[in-house]
Amino acid sequence: MKVETIEKLLRDVKENKIEVETALSQLKQLPYEDLGFAKVDHHRELRQGYPEVIYCAGKTVDQVVHIVDMIYKRGSNVLGTRATKEMYEAVKKMHPMAIHNEAARTIVLQQQKIETGKGYIVIVTGGTSDIPVAEEAAVTAEILGNKVERVYDVGVAGIHRLFSKLDIITNARVVIAVAGMEGALASVVGGLVDKPVIAVPTSVGYGANFGGLAALLSMLNSCASGTAVVNIDNGFGAGYMASMINKL
Amino acid sequence: MKVETIEKLLRDVKENKIEVETALSQLKQLPYEDLGFAKVDHHRELRQGYPEVIYCAGKTVDQVVHIVDMIYKRGSNVLGTRATKEMYEAVKKMHPMAIHNEAARTIVLQQQKIETGKGYIVIVTGGTSDIPVAEEAAVTAEILGNKVERVYDVGVAGIHRLFSKLDIITNARVVIAVAGMEGALASVVGGLVDKPVIAVPTSVGYGANFGGLAALLSMLNSCASGTAVVNIDNGFGAGYMASMINKL
Amino acid sequence: MKVETIEKLLRDVKENKIEVETALSQLKQLPYEDLGFAKVDHHRELRQGYPEVIYCAGKTVDQVVHIVDMIYKRGSNVLGTRATKEMYEAVKKMHPMAIHNEAARTIVLQQQKIETGKGYIVIVTGGTSDIPVAEEAAVTAEILGNKVERVYDVGVAGIHRLFSKLDIITNARVVIAVAGMEGALASVVGGLVDKPVIAVPTSVGYGANFGGLAALLSMLNSCASGTAVVNIDNGFGAGYMASMINKL
Amino acid sequence: MKVETIEKLLRDVKENKIEVETALSQLKQLPYEDLGFAKVDHHRELRQGYPEVIYCAGKTVDQVVHIVDMIYKRGSNVLGTRATKEMYEAVKKMHPMAIHNEAARTIVLQQQKIETGKGYIVIVTGGTSDIPVAEEAAVTAEILGNKVERVYDVGVAGIHRLFSKLDIITNARVVIAVAGMEGALASVVGGLVDKPVIAVPTSVGYGANFGGLAALLSMLNSCASGTAVVNIDNGFGAGYMASMINKL
Amino acid sequence: MKVETIEKLLRDVKENKIEVETALSQLKQLPYEDLGFAKVDHHRELRQGYPEVIYCAGKTVDQVVHIVDMIYKRGSNVLGTRATKEMYEAVKKMHPMAIHNEAARTIVLQQQKIETGKGYIVIVTGGTSDIPVAEEAAVTAEILGNKVERVYDVGVAGIHRLFSKLDIITNARVVIAVAGMEGALASVVGGLVDKPVIAVPTSVGYGANFGGLAALLSMLNSCASGTAVVNIDNGFGAGYMASMINKL
Amino acid sequence: MKVETIEKLLRDVKENKIEVETALSQLKQLPYEDLGFAKVDHHRELRQGYPEVIYCAGKTVDQVVHIVDMIYKRGSNVLGTRATKEMYEAVKKMHPMAIHNEAARTIVLQQQKIETGKGYIVIVTGGTSDIPVAEEAAVTAEILGNKVERVYDVGVAGIHRLFSKLDIITNARVVIAVAGMEGALASVVGGLVDKPVIAVPTSVGYGANFGGLAALLSMLNSCASGTAVVNIDNGFGAGYMASMINKL
Amino acid sequence: MKVETIEKLLRDVKENKIEVETALSQLKQLPYEDLGFAKVDHHRELRQGYPEVIYCAGKTVDQVVHIVDMIYKRGSNVLGTRATKEMYEAVKKMHPMAIHNEAARTIVLQQQKIETGKGYIVIVTGGTSDIPVAEEAAVTAEILGNKVERVYDVGVAGIHRLFSKLDIITNARVVIAVAGMEGALASVVGGLVDKPVIAVPTSVGYGANFGGLAALLSMLNSCASGTAVVNIDNGFGAGYMASMINKL
Amino acid sequence: MKVETIEKLLRDVKENKIEVETALSQLKQLPYEDLGFAKVDHHRELRQGYPEVIYCAGKTVDQVVHIVDMIYKRGSNVLGTRATKEMYEAVKKMHPMAIHNEAARTIVLQQQKIETGKGYIVIVTGGTSDIPVAEEAAVTAEILGNKVERVYDVGVAGIHRLFSKLDIITNARVVIAVAGMEGALASVVGGLVDKPVIAVPTSVGYGANFGGLAALLSMLNSCASGTAVVNIDNGFGAGYMASMINKL
Repeated sequence: MKVETIEKLLRDVKENKIEVETALSQLKQLPYEDLGFAKVDHHRELRQGYPEVIYCAGKTVDQVVHIVDMIYKRGSNVLGTRATKEMYEAVKKMHPMAIHNEAARTIVLQQQKIETGKGYIVIVTGGTSDIPVAEEAAVTAEILGNKVERVYDVGVAGIHRLFSKLDIITNARVVIAVAGMEGALASVVGGLVDKPVIAVPTSVGYGANFGGLAALLSMLNSCASGTAVVNIDNGFGAGYMASMINKL
Repeated sequence: MKVETIEKLLRDVKENKIEVETALSQLKQLPYEDLGFAKVDHHRELRQGYPEVIYCAGKTVDQVVHIVDMIYKRGSNVLGTRATKEMYEAVKKMHPMAIHNEAARTIVLQQQKIETGKGYIVIVTGGTSDIPVAEEAAVTAEILGNKVERVYDVGVAGIHRLFSKLDIITNARVVIAVAGMEGALASVVGGLVDKPVIAVPTSVGYGANFGGLAALLSMLNSCASGTAVVNIDNGFGAGYMASMINKL
Repeated sequence: MKVETIEKLLRDVKENKIEVETALSQLKQLPYEDLGFAKVDHHRELRQGYPEVIYCAGKTVDQVVHIVDMIYKRGSNVLGTRATKEMYEAVKKMHPMAIHNEAARTIVLQQQKIETGKGYIVIVTGGTSDIPVAEEAAVTAEILGNKVERVYDVGVAGIHRLFSKLDIITNARVVIAVAGMEGALASVVGGLVDKPVIAVPTSVGYGANFGGLAALLSMLNSCASGTAVVNIDNGFGAGYMASMINKL
Repeated sequence: MKVETIEKLLRDVKENKIEVETALSQLKQLPYEDLGFAKVDHHRELRQGYPEVIYCAGKTVDQVVHIVDMIYKRGSNVLGTRATKEMYEAVKKMHPMAIHNEAARTIVLQQQKIETGKGYIVIVTGGTSDIPVAEEAAVTAEILGNKVERVYDVGVAGIHRLFSKLDIITNARVVIAVAGMEGALASVVGGLVDKPVIAVPTSVGYGANFGGLAALLSMLNSCASGTAVVNIDNGFGAGYMASMINKL
Repeated sequence: MKVETIEKLLRDVKENKIEVETALSQLKQLPYEDLGFAKVDHHRELRQGYPEVIYCAGKTVDQVVHIVDMIYKRGSNVLGTRATKEMYEAVKKMHPMAIHNEAARTIVLQQQKIETGKGYIVIVTGGTSDIPVAEEAAVTAEILGNKVERVYDVGVAGIHRLFSKLDIITNARVVIAVAGMEGALASVVGGLVDKPVIAVPTSVGYGANFGGLAALLSMLNSCASGTAVVNIDNGFGAGYMASMINKL
Repeated sequence: MKVETIEKLLRDVKENKIEVETALSQLKQLPYEDLGFAKVDHHRELRQGYPEVIYCAGKTVDQVVHIVDMIYKRGSNVLGTRATKEMYEAVKKMHPMAIHNEAARTIVLQQQKIETGKGYIVIVTGGTSDIPVAEEAAVTAEILGNKVERVYDVGVAGIHRLFSKLDIITNARVVIAVAGMEGALASVVGGLVDKPVIAVPTSVGYGANFGGLAALLSMLNSCASGTAVVNIDNGFGAGYMASMINKL
Repeated sequence: MKVETIEKLLRDVKENKIEVETALSQLKQLPYEDLGFAKVDHHRELRQGYPEVIYCAGKTVDQVVHIVDMIYKRGSNVLGTRATKEMYEAVKKMHPMAIHNEAARTIVLQQQKIETGKGYIVIVTGGTSDIPVAEEAAVTAEILGNKVERVYDVGVAGIHRLFSKLDIITNARVVIAVAGMEGALASVVGGLVDKPVIAVPTSVGYGANFGGLAALLSMLNSCASGTAVVNIDNGFGAGYMASMINKL
Repeated sequence: MKVETIEKLLRDVKENKIEVETALSQLKQLPYEDLGFAKVDHHRELRQGYPEVIYCAGKTVDQVVHIVDMIYKRGSNVLGTRATKEMYEAVKKMHPMAIHNEAARTIVLQQQKIETGKGYIVIVTGGTSDIPVAEEAAVTAEILGNKVERVYDVGVAGIHRLFSKLDIITNARVVIAVAGMEGALASVVGGLVDKPVIAVPTSVGYGANFGGLAALLSMLNSCASGTAVVNIDNGFGAGYMASMINKL
């Protein structure tokens, strides 16, 4: 509800077009629906091509199916993350056009057309084991309306692999760098491009890796400017952040 | 050296305009100066209004003065971070127009005009103790050519303070959220805006704060989408990242 | 045994009303039974409506059944926490009126009437995954004789949800704030109410959450006054503490 | 602004008692000033006998003097925590009746009469080195209108000292247990009383104490029910929480 | 080989009783078999009533059976720790007199008579969940020739339970205090006795317990003198250490 | 007060030898002075040759002088640990026979004769930097009535140094192993002797030593049986524990 | 592409032997294929006797089989690490001469002759549980063309076992010291030899071992010079590093 | 004492050339002086050009001067690490030819000629702040008889700087990679060379760097084979290890 709407409401009251009670009832909704809080609600509003996101981990198959269906009926595109194969199959029974990205562990159910905007987001990974996290980022960015280029397995131990893809990386509008182990990829990429880099540490590794802590600290301490970090294995968060940046 | 330059070089050889030896000598420089690595060097190139950055911590006063002077002579704007008052005063003797932001611990020496681009970056802080970090971000973003709005001391313990500034925050193109203690500001702001949020944990706090670790973990685990995190107290990194995003 | 009791005992000895041996025998019990230590035993005494609590984790089904039965026979209400479904079913065979809260993992066996005292305790959670911990707190507080209001899934990423329930929260006598991930809920709630807030970090989250450590540190460093913290996932402890406060 | 106020506003518009513009202007303030947000502001309101609190650490002497003076002029009592002797002396020049508790590092400037309510809060410490934190809690609770009893240096290594004070401890309405090293005091006290215990870990100790971490973890894992924990060395937070509980 | 043996060897050479080569061959074994290194080997020597210990974790059933049998044939008593039921049953087939302590996860195979020495070792635990670790300590101390008294489930949350057993605890020559959660038991017991206390943190607990870390730090920081700590859950180590002390 | 004493008291009352009031007054002292709690108080009682210990860190010079004097007047020997040179000089003015061990940072004031008991305690250190901690242990053990042998700078990097002292080490009744860096000394010594070893990690080292954490973890995980650990740099605790063991 | 090649290319252009376009196309490949980057590619080149390494963890059986086969067909020897028995059996069906080291979890498929160079690498372990890691190092070093001696189960708790193998250890060119628990072996060995020691912490242990952290910190803090450390359980890394050293 | 020496001793006894007592006395010294333990002592023996090393941190100026002098008189070269300027000046008074490397904090006193062996060791650093650690490594390697090349300030954020020095790096026999912040340099260098890389994390950085922990974990988890790590800031250890490798 915009200021103009309130003004109109007041005028309608003045001109006896609506009852005081009706106006009151509408105004009581203000704090969390309209008067400046519209933005609060933005990511739950139904917009064309904009998905609602379900974090499936810790939910039952039935809950997931139910929520997917409810959102679908409201006309929205649906993105489920951290979804199991079992969840997907249950969803598919009801919505045969649901798509499963097994690596990314995502379910996508699209009914609205998605318009991709300017340029593209590039997602680079250090190794093949980082791909599930990268795919979660890719699927997220795509359903949010971005073109995505994938440059996988270009870790710094064989840096020529990275250089052979330099063009595709430096021409992106936003870079997502996904790496486990020591996470050096983010620093090297950050030093090579002049675009924002979203660094995603993964839990790939063992021993003193401590579940991704090594890569996380490495990325937070990156000597390359223009890098910011999301949580370990948080492909969705990286894709979402990159999309927000790309949409500017 | 662009591809066209190489092509021209080859044609010049073919047409005997230059000697093989001369061409060879130029081509030997390729790998790290030109042929695709130009981008490598981007942030050190001299561009109008684009500063070079000196991380002053761990350098002597003499070293800082020397580096500032050297950069200045190349015609570039200069930004010194983590600079002491003593450093500033030494720089000022040589360059009286140098400006010191005491809170931010920055030295700025500007000779090129700075063009601010689209919109503005907003910087919010939880408390007054977070201001030095926020100012480092602000000075960095400004010298890089961005308009900056400061919204300080709007921590979540008195959330009405934050709401009273909601307009200025939601209208920014990029948000930098600076907070110590439990760092909850980033999550609350992240939930209120639909723009990218750069979260900066600060070392403000005591006890189980562990030098900013509490705020850092809090921000990495933020339940709000569209948030990425830089290192503890890294105002420069946040300002640089926000600038990169805003310049898109 | 009060000082007066000892005095009387001595006078009885003096007046030959009791034997030295009898007096001696009574005095030997002093240190831990009477002389000021009566309170030591308080929470194991049988009082009307006051339950005994069994921490079922790490106990066999048989042990749980046996202890439940033993307490029941003494006439007390029984609360079992961290109980499996299997434990519940074994208990139910013997005591069909036993009630299982599957989410809370509790078994309640009530034979004494429970009087609820003044006002109510409100339990808020950040997300739906925090509900098991919240339910453990709720069941605990209820069996201890408190009215409980549940306000679930009002995390700070969509802060309007929290505000829409502000009345029910601010009117409570004690607030229990249950949240995982970054645990910002406790700070925001703590800033909105002027009642004691018991913060319960949960292990909900992943990556740099480190099994609830992020939420724990966040809550300990809360910038809102009037907040204290219990162990990660310790719903029982929060319910118990809140009850103690509410009973004042 | 209550619902009735809005209703009246609408009727005034309808009856042409006020202009649409005036009504609009008032309604625009709703979200953060009136409609349920009055409570947000509660703890900053000026009430009789209720102090405003200044966290002095990280502020300059001038800033502290200025803020104290500003609050004083509004008629409120003032509490400054983590204040240096130098700060106190500067405050005293302007407000000679300011009182300094050197151990607690507090400045108190009282102009409103303080009414102490029901019963008392007892503060116990393990050793003498924990007294500064305990005194910060004591001064806080007192200025907030509570009677405080101090029972210091009763650590568990000589448990008879604790028992000799059992009466004063068990008769309190709220207990604050302050301890460094291994922090076992909180568990022992928690097992002896049936009142809420606020546990305050202190950074007293060395080696594997890790700045209070040992006591913090110990208190969070306390086997005694009815205990909640505040941040390391957070005497203010404990005093504030205890006061909130005691005021119920 | 004692000094006298070497002297005899030399005299034999001198008197041509043995060849230089034979003497040389014997002397070459000196460094690690005899000349002061006898002590090195002490705990593997076959002594009456002294067992050999097998750490069964990480070994196959076959390996355990084989090692038990080999030691048995040398005439020694055998102690297997961290043994599964399956291991025990395999051992029992070959040595029917083998005894399994299921709680302690030990296998004992005794053929030599065990003489218990002076006094007794008392083992106290905070809760019932600490009993497996306590039993490992008990079985170890017993097979090493000590009388052991068990005082279980006397945690500090109900300190009267501990006091009711004070006689048996204070009369021991060595105390082993086994506790999880916050591990306060070690400090309280350490303050009550004037005998050496071996503190054993257990991994019993959850949340911020971090697998026994809370109890470990608590015990290392104990404010009671006369306490030393072994590894988390290391009942064997505590029993062994206590035995060494008791044998003095 | 023994049971017999109470019995006598009762008989005296019965036989009118003492007044009820007198008996009552004596009985009121029971819980923490006599009736089974006598042991509680043991280490504060005045015994011949048994010192009282003052932990000087965090105390003012005046406080230390005052406490030393007070204890001295009760006829006891005095041990001050973590004492500065300044503290010592202030004590010496009043008690010229006070002795300062500068390395150990101890003040000893002896007036009672000390009887050394059986055998001796050996203290070994890895390096020369560990000596202050070792000396604190030595002075503590000596004033408590033990003969002490010092074997310093025998770290495992040059293991022959250790072996050249093997006799003196293996003949001790108790071994204290003091080491920083990786703390391997405790394991090697533990494997060479069959006496109890008290391991003391020191904070000597840098980098990934983390203030003694490396040595602490190393010693807790020692593969040698018969070892227990005290807090980092806790020489006093080791000396006290060793004395308790040696006095058995 | 060497400098001479570029010179030739230029001359060919000059002499019209090739077209400008052809030359341009070749020059564009320079940065990452030739001009000094040849070394980048070295470890993936096919050399006689030099294996390619597959890290099998996190790969499917099919993927492993496929990669093994692909490498084999290029004529190279193959080393698979962290391979399951199931992977081995699948590989074996296609390549019957594949060899499985079950302890090391390696698959080796050799078709090129391996020349062992100078001297040998010795691998020592503290216990038998460290053998899998040691074997991974051994197999790696062997396939890379080194002679390996195994000296297992010579931990410092029984140091005579280590000394009995001193000759074989001190005569090696490189030592790999593999140990879990407190990892003291690396320091002791490092003090005994004057050859480079690669220390490998293992995750063998429990409690405060924290998955190998204790051994890792211990080895990093080793007081013996000439020691460097690889990641926890990283037998492959140790074998590779030792081979690189031995090949010098 | 070699085996031949013992044989001769025995023959001398046999032939009555020496007395049994004399032989016995000599044999008693065997275990730690001769019989295979000669190697134990190797690094303390006086060899031509081989220095003795003094770790000056924690020593007084007088102690350092004394030890330097003592070693010098034995004819050895001397290396003092972590030496202050004050120490150097005190040493210089007595030995004017002593050389101070202020960055490296080393004192070198050379009297024996140093022969440099094969090839050279290259030391690379990420930034200029890493130079002190690098210089400690350089001075150590040089005094131990190695040629050293320094390649400083070639961090991965500007990777072209590293590539411009690729020749000098790839031609070394051993590489020492010194880096703070995220330590990615070690991985990138490790991927570019086929020589052993000693990685040295430094404590350069701030925030979530945790005193070098970030770089340490990064280097331990390096995805490049052929890398091993020494302690944070341990330049000496890296230089020593590199020298050992280079001398093979």
